[in-house]
Amino acid sequence: MLTEADVRKHLNSLTKPPGSLGRLEDVAVRLCMVQQTLAPRTKPRSLALFASDHGVVAEGVTAWPSDVTALMVKNIASGGAASSVLASETDTSLELINVGVANDLSDVAGVLNNPIRRGTQNLATDDAMSPSEYDAAIQQGRLAARRASDAGCCLIAAGEMGIGNTTPASCLVAAITRTAPKDVVGRGAGADDDTLKRKQTVVEEALKRVPQNVDVSELAASIGGLEIAAMTGLFLEAADRGLTILLDGFIATASALVVNAEQPSVVMNMIAAHRSAEPGHTIALEHLGLEPVLDGWNLRLGEGTGALTALPLLDAAAAIVRDMATFEKAGIEKGDT
Amino acid sequence: MLTEADVRKHLNSLTKPPGSLGRLEDVAVRLCMVQQTLAPRTKPRSLALFASDHGVVAEGVTAWPSDVTALMVKNIASGGAASSVLASETDTSLELINVGVANDLSDVAGVLNNPIRRGTQNLATDDAMSPSEYDAAIQQGRLAARRASDAGCCLIAAGEMGIGNTTPASCLVAAITRTAPKDVVGRGAGADDDTLKRKQTVVEEALKRVPQNVDVSELAASIGGLEIAAMTGLFLEAADRGLTILLDGFIATASALVVNAEQPSVVMNMIAAHRSAEPGHTIALEHLGLEPVLDGWNLRLGEGTGALTALPLLDAAAAIVRDMATFEKAGIEKGDT
Repeated sequence: MLTEADVRKHLNSLTKPPGSLGRLEDVAVRLCMVQQTLAPRTKPRSLALFASDHGVVAEGVTAWPSDVTALMVKNIASGGAASSVLASETDTSLELINVGVANDLSDVAGVLNNPIRRGTQNLATDDAMSPSEYDAAIQQGRLAARRASDAGCCLIAAGEMGIGNTTPASCLVAAITRTAPKDVVGRGAGADDDTLKRKQTVVEEALKRVPQNVDVSELAASIGGLEIAAMTGLFLEAADRGLTILLDGFIATASALVVNAEQPSVVMNMIAAHRSAEPGHTIALEHLGLEPVLDGWNLRLGEGTGALTALPLLDAAAAIVRDMATFEKAGIEKGDT
Repeated sequence: MLTEADVRKHLNSLTKPPGSLGRLEDVAVRLCMVQQTLAPRTKPRSLALFASDHGVVAEGVTAWPSDVTALMVKNIASGGAASSVLASETDTSLELINVGVANDLSDVAGVLNNPIRRGTQNLATDDAMSPSEYDAAIQQGRLAARRASDAGCCLIAAGEMGIGNTTPASCLVAAITRTAPKDVVGRGAGADDDTLKRKQTVVEEALKRVPQNVDVSELAASIGGLEIAAMTGLFLEAADRGLTILLDGFIATASALVVNAEQPSVVMNMIAAHRSAEPGHTIALEHLGLEPVLDGWNLRLGEGTGALTALPLLDAAAAIVRDMATFEKAGIEKGDT
């Protein structure tokens, strides 16, 4: 078992003043711990991007209509979205999977079409999905992780596109971390004051609707989303296969809370990419005990863009710990620090 | 003239909620402003790494002996240093230039050997270099920028290797920003309490030694360093040739203060990569009005590693602003935010 002390000792043997690469060394430590090696790898890597719609949009919880989900899926598939651009820039393969978009996407090239249902039910009043639909979404996520692993990826991230999905994510964060909805709910992709208020009320009502003592899968089926469940499946399978998981923002971290409740060891495979502007994200990260790579960057777009933005910093950290010469090899006596 | 408002307007026309890429959008704005285009480029790019020694090391201002400069130059040249590893990882060509190392490096492959003198004189008691030596160092920097520009680079950074060089850098920051040495001087690559105290005293004495009313070139020759002067020349020439300058940490920013005193418009070409752990760095950045890309990363290695760490974030920002589709193109009506 490689310990943090082992990694720090190795980092201090490299040709630089001890600790002089600051946070880059912290990221290197985390990578080495996750992969249990002093020669961590970050390539090849993949982003699985799950798209789905949310019945709760009927409650007026978002600034954008549900139709935008399908339009953005097309935009991602044709290379015009932030996720497409950043995936290309970072040599990350992007797999786009429709697990529940309301509109028909069967004729869109570049989308793996496996809709489990056309959007969830309105979680304010009904279970978002049935247990079997939830299981099907988990399975979609597991299959995506399996494909990435079979393709040789050592690192995977999950992204999402789903208008309204900060509402189910807020429900999950509030329920699992036992935090008051008003402290969790944020503006998502741009809610105004009235929308924010409605969103808080919806989350409160949804939590009241769910029976006490349900298990975490039942909870995630009742107040979650199809793409959030697919992410959960992906994280579980990625950990089973020994992949490093780069955790995107608020939605991915809400999904990680479900994973953690089911199988806490999976968090050992996770690196948090960034701290999002969404207040519930910090609460979720603290619950998982994760320190994000990027702090104060105020990313709140989704689509896995937070993971893709932080990814080159992981590449740099991996390269440092893997490729730098030691003082011994360079024939340098260490300074007295 | 492209204004910040023009760039923000363009960013808000792209398929994402306005502002949802947070600081990445701020970096994109800076890149667009520097290059005066909505299609900024960050590749190809080059790091010119200037090495030199400092007579002031005789005062006991550093934890490492001067011999380490030559050893580290060999280590950089053979690919084992942090700068070598990060340059390779980020597809940045690295040119290593000896402008004044004390030891003979003429037989080291991969080093451009143009030592102006074998280390500076001890700035605590004498001018570090003569005016003609200073001019020669400036010229070395200008030539390096010219080579990068001729090779097609659109972006350049300057790095340094020089045991003891936080002392001349502290002298320059204190003198040019008119700040008390005790507020500027830091621990560099690992000074202990006694060393830190000696360093403060040396900076105070050096500033007393310099006559009032010298011009900034005379000041930089008297209390600066050969690699710092080479950086100054590089920044001046890079701006003349319209290159984007990615500013590394404390030493590079001290050099930028000299540039700013001579030709303030050069700062318009600069993007600050990070805020170093060295207290004088924040003072220098504020004097120049620059906001660093990375904050709180506590990088303090030198060699241009701060610039190389931040560089992929510039790549991401450039890709976003250049390659994303607009709402109009994607056929999406903007939300009401």
